Amino acid sequence: MRIPYTEFHDVLQTILVKIGFESDRAELCARLFADASRDGVHSHGLNRFPRFIEQIRSGIVDIEATPELVGGHGAMEQWDGRRGVGNLNAHESMSRAIALARAHGVGCVALRNTNHWMRGGNYGWQAADAGVIGICWTNTMPNLPAWGASDPRLGNNPLVIAVPRSKGHVILDMAMSQFSYGTLETYRARGEQLPVIGGFDLTGEVTCDPGAIETSRRPLPIGFWKGSGLAMMLDLVASLLASGCATHEIAQDVLRETNLSQVFLAFDVPSGDGFTDAVADGIVESVKISTPAGEDKVRYPGERTLEVRAENMEKGIPVDSAVWEQLLASCQNRER
Amino acid sequence: MRIPYTEFHDVLQTILVKIGFESDRAELCARLFADASRDGVHSHGLNRFPRFIEQIRSGIVDIEATPELVGGHGAMEQWDGRRGVGNLNAHESMSRAIALARAHGVGCVALRNTNHWMRGGNYGWQAADAGVIGICWTNTMPNLPAWGASDPRLGNNPLVIAVPRSKGHVILDMAMSQFSYGTLETYRARGEQLPVIGGFDLTGEVTCDPGAIETSRRPLPIGFWKGSGLAMMLDLVASLLASGCATHEIAQDVLRETNLSQVFLAFDVPSGDGFTDAVADGIVESVKISTPAGEDKVRYPGERTLEVRAENMEKGIPVDSAVWEQLLASCQNRER
Repeated sequence: MRIPYTEFHDVLQTILVKIGFESDRAELCARLFADASRDGVHSHGLNRFPRFIEQIRSGIVDIEATPELVGGHGAMEQWDGRRGVGNLNAHESMSRAIALARAHGVGCVALRNTNHWMRGGNYGWQAADAGVIGICWTNTMPNLPAWGASDPRLGNNPLVIAVPRSKGHVILDMAMSQFSYGTLETYRARGEQLPVIGGFDLTGEVTCDPGAIETSRRPLPIGFWKGSGLAMMLDLVASLLASGCATHEIAQDVLRETNLSQVFLAFDVPSGDGFTDAVADGIVESVKISTPAGEDKVRYPGERTLEVRAENMEKGIPVDSAVWEQLLASCQNRER
Repeated sequence: MRIPYTEFHDVLQTILVKIGFESDRAELCARLFADASRDGVHSHGLNRFPRFIEQIRSGIVDIEATPELVGGHGAMEQWDGRRGVGNLNAHESMSRAIALARAHGVGCVALRNTNHWMRGGNYGWQAADAGVIGICWTNTMPNLPAWGASDPRLGNNPLVIAVPRSKGHVILDMAMSQFSYGTLETYRARGEQLPVIGGFDLTGEVTCDPGAIETSRRPLPIGFWKGSGLAMMLDLVASLLASGCATHEIAQDVLRETNLSQVFLAFDVPSGDGFTDAVADGIVESVKISTPAGEDKVRYPGERTLEVRAENMEKGIPVDSAVWEQLLASCQNRER
């Protein structure tokens, strides 16, 4: 089932307004969810929307709270997200980092007490659309065992790096686990093995079996000890710069996960758009002409996003019909 | 064979002075090499020193060149390394980023036309010793196939993240390949398999056999497609911010590798040393109390470095006696 972007967006916006969002905040919040689904990131688009609504109802997310400047100087600012809406807080933080970058060459916003930012890539696209380089990351609840450990004490702490380019921004959006639990579930439901090892089974052997990893709760960090170390560093830097909670202080429950710490960096690109395009095109092309090891061409980060986006804007956004019907019903219930 | 730190440092300094270094630059350059070996990073300490001397003799490294400020504004500066000494250029750049961070909260120095920085971790320790958070990375010559490719068109682009902590800084220093060629060689020479998969063999299967990866020239990026994407992003950001060469423009030859682009970020930690220690200790301890999956305790990035450093300061720095004797001989030859 496919829903046109505008309809998709408007349904979400309508629900948000009914819940009590101010109209411009409902519009932006709905847009950030719609953009995620449009770009194929269903896990952090429509499929996450019901949980988001649940977090509003339970009081984890305060829809009236807006971020407050609490510290910093010059090109670095600390903001308190006051447990407001995660994607709105993140969008505002990247906007502020972009403004700081225009004034100071580089800008850094560290945000504490915020909620799940949903699809991190959105803030990379935001920076690149503004013509700046953007880097941002978030910590999460504990969901990843450190290298050498069997219990999850690290977050998978997604990292986003975005470079503007006229022919298509280059945007990396990646968590520190090789596969998310959502991806493991998807592979298992299809009865498929993972394309590469993704974690340990209960006997402590690495495996490509998604179900075995769901059972052991031991997904692999990217690059084994390296991603484990990187996840820890991202948590350290975010919680220090934001004076906010670290992963070990965040509730280990997807419904109660809150008080996250995030960092948003923006960099003014020194030499103008033409130069940026020439450099970025040169790098992209130099990698794309690689000799393929298999049947597929080598891709740059963000390339597939553009293809998926084009298809979904043309044909409509694919949705899980159960999720969609439930949303429409909740919409109508509230109208009665 | 072990050499006391002071003797190790002084021999290198003597050689550098004889080659024509100014005395304070010889002292610092020797110290950066000695610190690498002291901390167990032999591949970028003494063992890289002969190649460094060779690059000076061949004119790749200009020992008289110092970095020049060429652009930027506010908290962001562009410097031209003028093909000077890589570790001195990097050290000066991190010093400058730290000064910018003190003035602006965050500081960014983008450096172009520089040479191999040797051990990247040194600049992380430098930032952490100054009480700031440091992040830096470098691009390299092409030495890593992109995910899905068989020919090396990415650099392994080492990334360093450093957080100051009284009980021991937390410092990650990692390349984007799972194992360096130096590490592959070490394992092969010992007749050992790698602890995890490290690349592809000639048939395109992943393998733990170091020799098979040396033969195929197909080491794995960390996290497969993820590290491949991250390596590309680091090259993009460095070459754009520095207006410098990208990996595909750098000579694919360890003796002619030059004109590298690097980024140095420093962040003033907002809330004072006591707070920083409390946050960092909390995170480190929360991970170290993990349930071990095997026999070893879980470690934080930089923990082993402190142990190695303490041992080598007490017992002397282990050196390859052939390399050491050759250095002493070159020292004496030049005295005649």
